[in-house]
Amino acid sequence: MENNAFKLTIHMVSSLDGFIAKNDNSISWFETVDSYEKGVTLTEQDMVEFLKSIDCYVMGSHTYEHALKLSKSYGWVYGDVPVIVLTHRNLPVDGQNVEFYSGDLNNLVNERLKPNYRNVWMAGGAILAKDLIRLKLADEIRVSIIPIILGEGKLFFDHIGQEQTLHLKDATAYKNGIVELHYEIKK
Amino acid sequence: MENNAFKLTIHMVSSLDGFIAKNDNSISWFETVDSYEKGVTLTEQDMVEFLKSIDCYVMGSHTYEHALKLSKSYGWVYGDVPVIVLTHRNLPVDGQNVEFYSGDLNNLVNERLKPNYRNVWMAGGAILAKDLIRLKLADEIRVSIIPIILGEGKLFFDHIGQEQTLHLKDATAYKNGIVELHYEIKK
Repeated sequence: MENNAFKLTIHMVSSLDGFIAKNDNSISWFETVDSYEKGVTLTEQDMVEFLKSIDCYVMGSHTYEHALKLSKSYGWVYGDVPVIVLTHRNLPVDGQNVEFYSGDLNNLVNERLKPNYRNVWMAGGAILAKDLIRLKLADEIRVSIIPIILGEGKLFFDHIGQEQTLHLKDATAYKNGIVELHYEIKK
Repeated sequence: MENNAFKLTIHMVSSLDGFIAKNDNSISWFETVDSYEKGVTLTEQDMVEFLKSIDCYVMGSHTYEHALKLSKSYGWVYGDVPVIVLTHRNLPVDGQNVEFYSGDLNNLVNERLKPNYRNVWMAGGAILAKDLIRLKLADEIRVSIIPIILGEGKLFFDHIGQEQTLHLKDATAYKNGIVELHYEIKK
């Protein structure tokens, strides 16, 4: 049954102190040099299988602009998978499978996403993620914790203002010291 | 070698969004009702062995006052183990092995703790914990993450203002959905 059910997953990469970005927006802290002996390693095959399972990405406009900038050097990381960008602004499209959306989040999830996709991945946007949690529209959350205290920056959860019970689905520690916590958001 | 080395460990219990206390100070959220099938369980013997290894507790004055209040109903949880309370205030002592300290933290660690103890546990006090990390006086940090988003309250790390590299020593997921992350603080 679960394989056929719709699922909207929020993903975040965070420091131990909960920051997803430094004040200067540098991202060198993502490159952990830690080594955790007991950790597991993902093979390229694992990664390919995992990415193949995602049939739509949703993101905020800043994440989109960042991905667009990176695509000039490294290519478009989301391939042919549909990307829906939440924005009220007019943003450039560069030959990708990108759609802009500026309406209500309930409509987005119930009318645009649920009838068309199975495994939707919220790839970035702290404000968007918080709204999705508050409105009970997100089903799961995956946090990758990098072994660093950043000390300052942009908090992911930043006083979301609403209590939300979680269910731990999985906890995986990797060889590079990153821990991924995978929770179901209870409704 | 490591068994003979001095170690100061910071322990915190936190929600996924990094809060250690709610604004109303209620602690019912500690009682998780989650169930994680793959998780491990600690036996009473494990707990006893673990607690026996701690030879000194250090805490802030609010944690001490809270423990003192709880002790009226449940007894003094730290037993005969020395407890050092960091405070400038005159606080009551109730027949326990408690000492007050109001001096410099470098002196506390290097002159009071190191010559006398091996395994010191920082049992509470967000401001104290931050100062110990900033001054590079803490050796390890253990975070127990409860499967809940609190949404508001008192942040543990709260913009510590200094970057600190960590090394993942262990990651343990328990049957009750709590995940304990154990890091070495790199110096």
